[in-house]
Amino acid sequence: MKRNTYLTLLTPDEARILWFERLHAHSHTLAEENVALPDALHRVLSRAVEAQRSSPAFHGAAMDGIAVSAEDTFSASARNPLRLELGKKAHWINTGHPLPQGLNAVIMMENLNTETVGETQWAIIEKATFPWQHVRKLGEDMVATEIILPPGTCIGPYDLGALAAGGVLEVPVFVRPRVSIVPSGSEIVPLSEAREEDLRAGRVLPEFNSLIFSAMITEAGGDATVLPVVPDEPTAIAAAITNALDAGADMIILNAGSSAGSHDYTAHVLESLGEVLVHGISVMPGKPTVLAVVRGRPVIGVPGYPVSAGIAMEEFVLHLLALWQKRSVSERRKVLAVPYNPLPSRPGMEERLRVKLGLVGGSIVAVPLPRGAGTITSLSRADGIICIPRDSEGCDAGEPVTVELLRPETALAGALLAIGSHDNTLDMLDSLLRKTYPGFRLTSAHVGSLGGLMALRRGQCHLAGSHLLDAEDGVYNRKAIEENLEEPTVLLRLVDREQGILTAPGNPLYINGIEDLARQDVRFINRQRGSGTRVLLDYRLASLGISSTGIKGYRDEEYTHMNVAAAVLSGRADAGLAVRAAANALGLPFVPVGMEEYDLVIPRRFLAMEAMQALLDVIRSESFRKTVESMGGYGTEKTGQIIWEYAGR
Amino acid sequence: MKRNTYLTLLTPDEARILWFERLHAHSHTLAEENVALPDALHRVLSRAVEAQRSSPAFHGAAMDGIAVSAEDTFSASARNPLRLELGKKAHWINTGHPLPQGLNAVIMMENLNTETVGETQWAIIEKATFPWQHVRKLGEDMVATEIILPPGTCIGPYDLGALAAGGVLEVPVFVRPRVSIVPSGSEIVPLSEAREEDLRAGRVLPEFNSLIFSAMITEAGGDATVLPVVPDEPTAIAAAITNALDAGADMIILNAGSSAGSHDYTAHVLESLGEVLVHGISVMPGKPTVLAVVRGRPVIGVPGYPVSAGIAMEEFVLHLLALWQKRSVSERRKVLAVPYNPLPSRPGMEERLRVKLGLVGGSIVAVPLPRGAGTITSLSRADGIICIPRDSEGCDAGEPVTVELLRPETALAGALLAIGSHDNTLDMLDSLLRKTYPGFRLTSAHVGSLGGLMALRRGQCHLAGSHLLDAEDGVYNRKAIEENLEEPTVLLRLVDREQGILTAPGNPLYINGIEDLARQDVRFINRQRGSGTRVLLDYRLASLGISSTGIKGYRDEEYTHMNVAAAVLSGRADAGLAVRAAANALGLPFVPVGMEEYDLVIPRRFLAMEAMQALLDVIRSESFRKTVESMGGYGTEKTGQIIWEYAGR
Repeated sequence: MKRNTYLTLLTPDEARILWFERLHAHSHTLAEENVALPDALHRVLSRAVEAQRSSPAFHGAAMDGIAVSAEDTFSASARNPLRLELGKKAHWINTGHPLPQGLNAVIMMENLNTETVGETQWAIIEKATFPWQHVRKLGEDMVATEIILPPGTCIGPYDLGALAAGGVLEVPVFVRPRVSIVPSGSEIVPLSEAREEDLRAGRVLPEFNSLIFSAMITEAGGDATVLPVVPDEPTAIAAAITNALDAGADMIILNAGSSAGSHDYTAHVLESLGEVLVHGISVMPGKPTVLAVVRGRPVIGVPGYPVSAGIAMEEFVLHLLALWQKRSVSERRKVLAVPYNPLPSRPGMEERLRVKLGLVGGSIVAVPLPRGAGTITSLSRADGIICIPRDSEGCDAGEPVTVELLRPETALAGALLAIGSHDNTLDMLDSLLRKTYPGFRLTSAHVGSLGGLMALRRGQCHLAGSHLLDAEDGVYNRKAIEENLEEPTVLLRLVDREQGILTAPGNPLYINGIEDLARQDVRFINRQRGSGTRVLLDYRLASLGISSTGIKGYRDEEYTHMNVAAAVLSGRADAGLAVRAAANALGLPFVPVGMEEYDLVIPRRFLAMEAMQALLDVIRSESFRKTVESMGGYGTEKTGQIIWEYAGR
Repeated sequence: MKRNTYLTLLTPDEARILWFERLHAHSHTLAEENVALPDALHRVLSRAVEAQRSSPAFHGAAMDGIAVSAEDTFSASARNPLRLELGKKAHWINTGHPLPQGLNAVIMMENLNTETVGETQWAIIEKATFPWQHVRKLGEDMVATEIILPPGTCIGPYDLGALAAGGVLEVPVFVRPRVSIVPSGSEIVPLSEAREEDLRAGRVLPEFNSLIFSAMITEAGGDATVLPVVPDEPTAIAAAITNALDAGADMIILNAGSSAGSHDYTAHVLESLGEVLVHGISVMPGKPTVLAVVRGRPVIGVPGYPVSAGIAMEEFVLHLLALWQKRSVSERRKVLAVPYNPLPSRPGMEERLRVKLGLVGGSIVAVPLPRGAGTITSLSRADGIICIPRDSEGCDAGEPVTVELLRPETALAGALLAIGSHDNTLDMLDSLLRKTYPGFRLTSAHVGSLGGLMALRRGQCHLAGSHLLDAEDGVYNRKAIEENLEEPTVLLRLVDREQGILTAPGNPLYINGIEDLARQDVRFINRQRGSGTRVLLDYRLASLGISSTGIKGYRDEEYTHMNVAAAVLSGRADAGLAVRAAANALGLPFVPVGMEEYDLVIPRRFLAMEAMQALLDVIRSESFRKTVESMGGYGTEKTGQIIWEYAGR
């Protein structure tokens, strides 16, 4: 039995509190500087700013008209109009200008007449005014010495206006905290210096975490410096930290290389230089985070994998930068969502799971993105994060869970959620939709055709891509819809597409058809159960009388055409079944197997949605057609046509 | 009867649609440029970006351990451990590194033992592995040619990482739309060039709208240029527009001066140069907005008052910038709030009313800020905006209304709402609270002591500042609390403070006490009914046997001490009653009338709130005490003490 070290790990909150206390982070005082207003946008006030002058600085007209003494007009009425001589008891005045001495009201241009008799102009007033009517009084907006903005304010456009109105032309702000980033790892090279062939061969590993960290620090008001990559040697790492501290860094981020033992290096080096408070936190991804204090300054060992690194940055670095600047960390909005599938999780560790989201029929559906800590696209594609608590074994499908939103709710409201079969044209369709109708988007999750119909049946998506061949009559999708769906639904042709066998470059094994897949020298890569491509394969195998047990690799599954192509390109398999577009994309030979229908299955009730109308409009556009055709392997003859209507049952 | 032009005005939505259609804004194509990743943060992608390489680019180890062929391990078990020779059938491998050719699994370091016999090292494996275990397969994250990010993406930190992982080192982004800002008005001078004495005298009007506009445009991804101030002459304005268009401006903002007829100039000039589509919109503030098209480009006449200008900027300029960049405008989150007081509104015009917000006992309370279009502090102080629809005459107090949030909800959750009497120490307390406990804040609205107790009774605030003198026994606050509140409440001393008469500089009328206020040559400025200062005045007048009708200006009211001081400083009145700190702030003579108690009234149920505990902690701090004392006119002997507990009834 191995000891379960996770139970001894601190939670992110516990770890943060411990680290912050040792750092005296709450009483830490950043240096201040004065900046002129035009340079102050998004800087953070270090102290309260008081008005230097009152605003308005004088009693001024709030309207265009004439300035009068209200008391002079008390007798005015429509029956008995009052005449005041202009230039004497009444004075033309423009909005914003100061009232002449002794006057206290303005009569609007629209409410008076004038008359010229000889050299003299008269204002004719039919209604009394009252003191201070249409006057902006001195100090009405702010009085000199009043506080305009409190400390910790991140200055926005309107704040600039309020400061200017109060006669404040420069403001005291916190000097941006200096954060030094030390990437480490012996095979790591800065991204810009890596040669493409070395990257592809894995001879060097590109360093791009520092790009992410720098951007996060910039957004948090800090000043990031990326130091040169340090090899995985304790003395080199120690020297880099010491130099950064000598150079005045307020905080140091040590980004672990991916080499064996590099985490231990981090902790050992930090122990030798200062104090390690936390070595590992109870959250996945993010566990191998190290929190230390060296010479009174915070040093954090951030894990190498980007998803782990992101969590360490958010939980510790961004919190500390906010606290130093006396700002509250803006927490993400939380909503309830229903997971599309069960989310098992290991008890003892909190898990953060990134998801795509769709607002379907009033409830929010969450579709998990791949969990790997190295899956950087899960960071850029995520709409939200589900936190599965430490004491939980996960969530069941359909059981509502809390999701932190990563995008504004309006983006969510404008998104159509497609769950089902994968085709590259869906991504392209999303891009065209966004370009044509900003505000709408197509979010798609790839679970295979049958999975899409199941999601539709549960009301979890707006549409599903499907290419399910019925083995009996050779017709696509209709029988599967009849068997699985209950509500009225339309079947819309997205594209016809060519399926075929992808082989290694040059097709060295001379694979020329489905029957060759059963050869003992051919390693096949399959698609997952429930995918239309798998159904197609089984259909063809059955019609040729070939047993799936005779196919080497039949149980080795991938989830998308592109991943099948990648498996073949990498030599992991000799052949796979996929669309021609995937073969074209990676330059692989393609042995045609046949054309198939790739349709969108759309419940009738979603057709009236504005976003769906926009999507249909884009599908039927010339520009979609042309782009699809340019990808090769697609037919667009019936693209956009409703080819069948299902009445439901 | 004047024609009501408002009914013929377009709503902001109607006006925007009309303008955008004439501009062909939906199909407008901004120029593109390529930028390197380190410069791409917050830029907006002009087209979909595809992966240039797969990620991972090879089958790589997901763990530190040994790489093997899974098939070789199938016989391994604890009873019958398998021995593989290292360097031959098993190879040490570090996370992220490529698997040697032909191998397809990694056994974690933790799950194996090694043995060295002579020169040969053996891995001892007690458990079979399966193909691709602990391997990140080529293309697992993304496959070359797949779309990484769609067009219209505003690039964030994680997007940079995804792009880098996909081998994309520079990205196509929209060139920032160039927006030229033309301030106009004959007396307008750039803020930086205005002399203080000219500003105070109103001889020049400072121009700072362009500072606000530039910042808004920067935030929206545009590139703002502020042109020199143009005098109010049609030819000068026309020349400025023509020159800006010649210089390549994508959009022009003409900011009306405040002079008479300047709006008409704007419309006339634009009509002579191109087409005016909209002249006035049915929203207050914001009505005098002008939307035009000149030489195919958008030109907008933005009103001069900052609150109106802000609405025109948000409704038209920011929407257009977003549309051009294929982004959706991020709408503000809406919540229901209960207005503290009735909000009457003129039918026929939509009204946008800025409010402060507090989350009190589970519901959100909205306290309106001053409505004036020139009240720039209403922009910087607002927590939210209430839109009163065009067909409504307003809302009743207590009737829930929709509020657009201007701050994150977490800021709202951390705010204590004080409604009641005004004292400068409250603003100072807020600043100290934020510095000491970022995340908490004190929001205060000034409605007088009695108004505060009313708000407490209705459960609309967390605390109230109060200094209500009981005329019978001369005791502060207790009787008022007993009369007005039902729930258990504590009375906490904030400060003792000195009230007195403020007079014009030099006290030219020799005002030496309350009795002088009844003199016929003295113009008084009063505080509003229900304020503690008004109660104090009435108490003193009564004890001297002076009737309020004998006080000239008794009915001329202001809402804060500072506004009373400003009224006296400006010569609007000769005397007013206020705290010494207000006199000190503006350098006015002060005739002491007496010390009074300024207390905080806090329902017992709110004492346990974390934010309230933080507030009490700050009130009792040395630093609060010192700052208060430095303001002058305050006593702090009992500051922070609970001086009375009310059991409720």
